[in-house]
Amino acid sequence: MIDPQRYPRLSRIQVPADLRQFPVEDLPVIADELRGYLIEQVAQSGGHFGAGLGVIELTVALHWLYDTPTDRLVWDVGHQTYPHKILTGRRDLIHTVKQKAGVSPFPKRGESEYDTFGVGHSSTSISAALGMAIALQRAGDERKVIAVIGDGAITGGMAFEALAHGGGMGDERDGIEPNLLVILNDNQMSISENVGGVTRMLGRLTGSRTLNALREGGKRLLGDKHRPAAKFVKRWEEQWKGMFVPSTMFEELGFHYTGPIDGHDMEALVGTLKTLQGMKGPQLLHIITTKGKGYERAEGDQIGYHAVGPFDPELGMISKAGARKPTYTDVFGDWICDMAAADEKLMGITPAMREGSGLVRFSKEYPQRYFDVAIAEQHAVTLAAGMACEGAKPVVAIYSTFLQRGYDQLIHDVALQELDVLFAIDRAGVVGPDGATHAGNLDLSYLRCVPGMVVMTPADENECRQMLSTGYRYEGPAAVRYPRGSGTGVAVQPALDVLQIGKAQLRRRGSRVALLAFGALVPAAEEVGQALGLTVVNMRFVKPLDRTLILQLAAEHHGLVTMEDNVVAGGAGSGVAELLAAEGVDVSILHLGLPDAFQAHGSREELLAEAGLDVAGIRSAIVQRWHDLDSAPPRSAVN
Amino acid sequence: MIDPQRYPRLSRIQVPADLRQFPVEDLPVIADELRGYLIEQVAQSGGHFGAGLGVIELTVALHWLYDTPTDRLVWDVGHQTYPHKILTGRRDLIHTVKQKAGVSPFPKRGESEYDTFGVGHSSTSISAALGMAIALQRAGDERKVIAVIGDGAITGGMAFEALAHGGGMGDERDGIEPNLLVILNDNQMSISENVGGVTRMLGRLTGSRTLNALREGGKRLLGDKHRPAAKFVKRWEEQWKGMFVPSTMFEELGFHYTGPIDGHDMEALVGTLKTLQGMKGPQLLHIITTKGKGYERAEGDQIGYHAVGPFDPELGMISKAGARKPTYTDVFGDWICDMAAADEKLMGITPAMREGSGLVRFSKEYPQRYFDVAIAEQHAVTLAAGMACEGAKPVVAIYSTFLQRGYDQLIHDVALQELDVLFAIDRAGVVGPDGATHAGNLDLSYLRCVPGMVVMTPADENECRQMLSTGYRYEGPAAVRYPRGSGTGVAVQPALDVLQIGKAQLRRRGSRVALLAFGALVPAAEEVGQALGLTVVNMRFVKPLDRTLILQLAAEHHGLVTMEDNVVAGGAGSGVAELLAAEGVDVSILHLGLPDAFQAHGSREELLAEAGLDVAGIRSAIVQRWHDLDSAPPRSAVN
Repeated sequence: MIDPQRYPRLSRIQVPADLRQFPVEDLPVIADELRGYLIEQVAQSGGHFGAGLGVIELTVALHWLYDTPTDRLVWDVGHQTYPHKILTGRRDLIHTVKQKAGVSPFPKRGESEYDTFGVGHSSTSISAALGMAIALQRAGDERKVIAVIGDGAITGGMAFEALAHGGGMGDERDGIEPNLLVILNDNQMSISENVGGVTRMLGRLTGSRTLNALREGGKRLLGDKHRPAAKFVKRWEEQWKGMFVPSTMFEELGFHYTGPIDGHDMEALVGTLKTLQGMKGPQLLHIITTKGKGYERAEGDQIGYHAVGPFDPELGMISKAGARKPTYTDVFGDWICDMAAADEKLMGITPAMREGSGLVRFSKEYPQRYFDVAIAEQHAVTLAAGMACEGAKPVVAIYSTFLQRGYDQLIHDVALQELDVLFAIDRAGVVGPDGATHAGNLDLSYLRCVPGMVVMTPADENECRQMLSTGYRYEGPAAVRYPRGSGTGVAVQPALDVLQIGKAQLRRRGSRVALLAFGALVPAAEEVGQALGLTVVNMRFVKPLDRTLILQLAAEHHGLVTMEDNVVAGGAGSGVAELLAAEGVDVSILHLGLPDAFQAHGSREELLAEAGLDVAGIRSAIVQRWHDLDSAPPRSAVN
Repeated sequence: MIDPQRYPRLSRIQVPADLRQFPVEDLPVIADELRGYLIEQVAQSGGHFGAGLGVIELTVALHWLYDTPTDRLVWDVGHQTYPHKILTGRRDLIHTVKQKAGVSPFPKRGESEYDTFGVGHSSTSISAALGMAIALQRAGDERKVIAVIGDGAITGGMAFEALAHGGGMGDERDGIEPNLLVILNDNQMSISENVGGVTRMLGRLTGSRTLNALREGGKRLLGDKHRPAAKFVKRWEEQWKGMFVPSTMFEELGFHYTGPIDGHDMEALVGTLKTLQGMKGPQLLHIITTKGKGYERAEGDQIGYHAVGPFDPELGMISKAGARKPTYTDVFGDWICDMAAADEKLMGITPAMREGSGLVRFSKEYPQRYFDVAIAEQHAVTLAAGMACEGAKPVVAIYSTFLQRGYDQLIHDVALQELDVLFAIDRAGVVGPDGATHAGNLDLSYLRCVPGMVVMTPADENECRQMLSTGYRYEGPAAVRYPRGSGTGVAVQPALDVLQIGKAQLRRRGSRVALLAFGALVPAAEEVGQALGLTVVNMRFVKPLDRTLILQLAAEHHGLVTMEDNVVAGGAGSGVAELLAAEGVDVSILHLGLPDAFQAHGSREELLAEAGLDVAGIRSAIVQRWHDLDSAPPRSAVN
């Protein structure tokens, strides 16, 4: 529970209505308390950290000024919403963040009426808020709608699409401009450092003097009719009209631009927001904040403190001593450096996930072959396609869940043209603590239906490296999808060997039932197969499947069990069933995989167990189908 | 063959090298011949028309000035590439466009070395060209890369992502700016009229005076040191610095902007392009053209002449007399007006496909509830999600192939949040003449794996209307996917009745084998079922499936046949097989569907037949599996 001694004001705030009881003068102190409490709580629980610290003042100002939840506040991405959660009924639960049945790390409609829109992937807030503003306006409802978007998220193409739509609406036939306030929270960061033209553009806006000061200066200059040059300037201004008004991309697109202002200056924030409340049409307020504000270590290491494990607020994060088991991400990070050394045609592409995708070393060792394209998954994929057209060999490092953003480009620009692009798909299958928005539960289904793709799932870290080499050497579209975290911990061989495309690996020869396991489920399959005396296969390839082996297994067993950490619907197991159906082979088949549901957050192990994909769950499902397996003595393995 | 009398120059041009033999003075006449030939040919064959006429001069200038195909020319979308095809080896084949085995209506890498990048969906050219430019540059290759993108296509978010990436590259660690020329072909049109903030922005640039003229004027003004106000202006300019330089969004993002210039003025085009050839770094040339240029009727009706059937060049297109069989698109267009009349909460959204999606009447009758968001599929979907949050009932009208662009948004912003959005998915399944880039062959697979979606496929036009009402009334995410063109031609009932969710329709009770047909394949299934005495079911729902009926059919038949105009991989039939596997029911199953390949263009009938999904193909596949069916007398139907 919150300590009323340390947090005399915050302890009296359960919901924004309580906050609104305080006078405006108290807001800076409340912000201080909120900041202290956030540091205290996240230090205990771990979670997203720096982004929240950057929007403390904004969060307080918005909930104090606007009538939330009646007014609609939409947060982009959601890394920044812990302070919002604390002020909106979840103060005493924030330490449960990311834990199973605890507070979600992102806004979630089902969790609170203050969470108006569920987020996780970036760049959606303007679209969602515009939709809300239109719906309310058309219903004659005067409620306000505010979107808060970071300068990282605004690089995403859909944010531009939304700005262009919202900004242009006044020109349309109906002539109704949406009442919408977009707050651009500019901290020069997303998760990694921001790059690209948008960053350059925003940097210019926040140069030595602020735009507003310039404008005011200009007005004063022009306003004084007696100055000798005023008349000339007026004429000159007309001559140049259209060149410098409007002056920002946002105004070019039809938004009224205000800013930039200091997002940690409560007085400026409240004052500006109050002014904007009285204005009609699409507004954009540009505020400058510091990620990690108020916690020195986080300000100094914004990437390191983006998301943290539990830490001591006095000491900061301590690097863990001793050798950490390498993750699949580490394996990829090493592989791409090794392959880049072996082949100068290799190019590495990431949509703003250098750290998460394991590309830090590659970015340093091969800066000219490293491309962080910002949060721009669509572009990332087609950029790779373009590179492949000219003989480069691009590797797109991307999370499974984010590849959904580049799906059309993968289909049309890569697969249809049979271009030589390798997708290194991290965080595939069950992801865990980040919840449903970050789950990689669908990729095998949405990739398998794409003609011409080679799709691989490694059973362990060494095989992951082999598959990356295989996909890289294969002259066509290929994908290796691997899970979050580490696998069995096998030693990873330094070679850059390739596997035979479409060839599965028989791990254990048993009888009666054959377990056809994909990727991360191979170890569990081996354990169950051992216990029940069953055949076990590491399938390796989701596409193309090992037809010969599957037919042989079908002929030699009563039943087949497919196992994957992907939804059953359209997944790898369905591919096996389709192959058998096409061959006219009738064999009893059991598909084990993830449920047809969005899984809430929890640890990867918890979620796999919940889906029946741990050893106990798998064994139980098999025995339930083939009752005799449990009683009969297992035949010895002839491996 | 081309008539050398009418086309004395064009008849001597097979490839751009021939074109380059002519002096620059001849280019306008060559452009005239090319225009005349294009009109003549498309009048015979039909095809995309207006866009090509708009880029005649540009096409001639580019191929004359650049060393194609060594230099890389990337056309966006590709509606505009018929003149390019005529000048690059396909002059005498252009009349076969869109026909099976004829010239593809879009650039296609396999068709010609001059087609550097296959397109079909818009907004990809800058990404692809940037990838090419980077790959060439990194390999020390000095070849030029040019992307031509329309003002419609540039509204797509991925074009913005690519501009931001390319424009910002000079700022990155490696400091290498890509050498890339983007030509913005601005005709104030995509397929429909353009809308939104980008159009507004471009409109400003092309105002009464051109930007370049302004600049030149400004320079002259400032250059004259003796003018009394020059000193003041200098000071004033510094004061305002950053506000008006750079002056366009393109320059803000890091591109050097030139234009706008008249894209039909050959001299200006060649001169400007020559200047730009000597410049380094990312360049953007803004040209103004007229869609349909040089064919008066097309200039006057740019939407009508975007794509045409065969017509008489003298008379133009003639509206066909007599009642045309209504298409599924027509059915949707009527339904949305009727439902909008019945429920004021209905909102209609299209990503720039008003005509193609049947929304013309709706846009006129309900302008305040009609939203053309420009080519912005990602935004379209999340806008709908935002509307649904506030109690509106959005209908997203979208082609199957374009929904791939909004896949992540459909998953996260709609399905995960269980929001009440209806997707009216046109051009699903085999589409035909537009080729693989416009095929709707994957949607059942990529939709079926998304938890919580209701997915329907109508067997005829009346059922399509019922399903639209069903999906609309259902309070959650739903999709109705229907094919291009018309169906059986049944009368469409005016009622807004709903179907029972997840309930299939037994069409014919037969014996031995049951045909489980989805959507457009129901009529063929009935014909085959009749001939062979089999059971026939119109499945209606891909998700949720009619579990009770499927289990009953499995119990009563030797085998089941699933039939769909979607790829077999992960399709509706796999859903049936998964259900049976989950229930532990072993029954022989045959999946009929589209192949695991990208189908080339042809008519819908040709492509269905090729895939074995016409009556003959279906019958043959069934008899091949169950040999006895052909010989045994069919049992009479007990319907």
